Amino acid sequence: MDSHIEQLIRLLAKLPGLGPRSGRRAALYLIKRADSLLAPLAKAMNEAAERVKACSTCGNLDGSDPCAVCADDRRDGSTVCVVEDVADLWALERAATYRGIYHVLGGALSALDGIGPDDLNIPALVSRVRAGGVQEVIFATSATVDGQTTAHYIADSLEGTGVTITGLALGVPMGGELDYLDEGTLSAAMKARRSV
Amino acid sequence: MDSHIEQLIRLLAKLPGLGPRSGRRAALYLIKRADSLLAPLAKAMNEAAERVKACSTCGNLDGSDPCAVCADDRRDGSTVCVVEDVADLWALERAATYRGIYHVLGGALSALDGIGPDDLNIPALVSRVRAGGVQEVIFATSATVDGQTTAHYIADSLEGTGVTITGLALGVPMGGELDYLDEGTLSAAMKARRSV
Repeated sequence: MDSHIEQLIRLLAKLPGLGPRSGRRAALYLIKRADSLLAPLAKAMNEAAERVKACSTCGNLDGSDPCAVCADDRRDGSTVCVVEDVADLWALERAATYRGIYHVLGGALSALDGIGPDDLNIPALVSRVRAGGVQEVIFATSATVDGQTTAHYIADSLEGTGVTITGLALGVPMGGELDYLDEGTLSAAMKARRSV
Repeated sequence: MDSHIEQLIRLLAKLPGLGPRSGRRAALYLIKRADSLLAPLAKAMNEAAERVKACSTCGNLDGSDPCAVCADDRRDGSTVCVVEDVADLWALERAATYRGIYHVLGGALSALDGIGPDDLNIPALVSRVRAGGVQEVIFATSATVDGQTTAHYIADSLEGTGVTITGLALGVPMGGELDYLDEGTLSAAMKARRSV
């Protein structure tokens, strides 16, 4: 096989969701669409590699620093939503309900994976809060052991700052059928029941 | 979301095996590895887009024309293996048994998809055989209705050329458990049974 094709397959196979086999399929698919997909994708990648940087304030990935969210005057700078990853920020932005700003941790504490507080963007969050202007910190970390441990750790670090600390509601997801939900979710939803 | 990231996600989502959701995941994965993966992949894509072309003899995709297989003196030019797609050629090359050359059709005849003989690389195959030097044509088209229809059509087109026409053996695949094989395969394997 041609070395250019081999190199393309080798790199494509590293993408999440692809492997050696689907990497070959993707490479062939791209090469057959050299003008309509391969060249535009290469251009988009080059531009993303050059332009996209982490926001020095919140850790979001964007073409400008501060990022579009941090730079937006219409957003409420007194509310900071803490997420593990940029993908979580994107998910909340798609929900289009939240009008505050964010703080991206870059992961969650994990004893198993050896990820400690220093590996995450936690000191910057504490500094942001201590610098003043923040009234509420919303934890939107995953509803997993690691995510909740991370939230507790940060809550401890923010003690004494007087900031209000909240977390996303736990409950039945929209469209969720009770029969398919786990006991933990149902138990949390029952405990947090509300008047209708 | 940043327009560069959006464009990257939009194009990545077009790859086979990826969709909007896994496209977002792949984009984020790439941006976080700007130097180690994103830039090299963009470079590999640019090079593939520039260099890789279809071989004017056999239709294989390669950095040179004629392709490395056609240009290789050690390969037997009197035996031509007919495959539907470059991926099939790659699969046979991985098997590393075949030492002849190839002819890539670019698909199979399909009444359902409206693919007729003129949409495939069939006239070039007939010309190659009529030009002389070819002694055997091996059909390695898929063992599907379309693949077999294509083989029959080409066999008819080659009538009178005096060339030997063969096809891949049908039977139980290596490691195949009889219980999981379809009736068609078992029936073909039984009919083509050999002395042990």
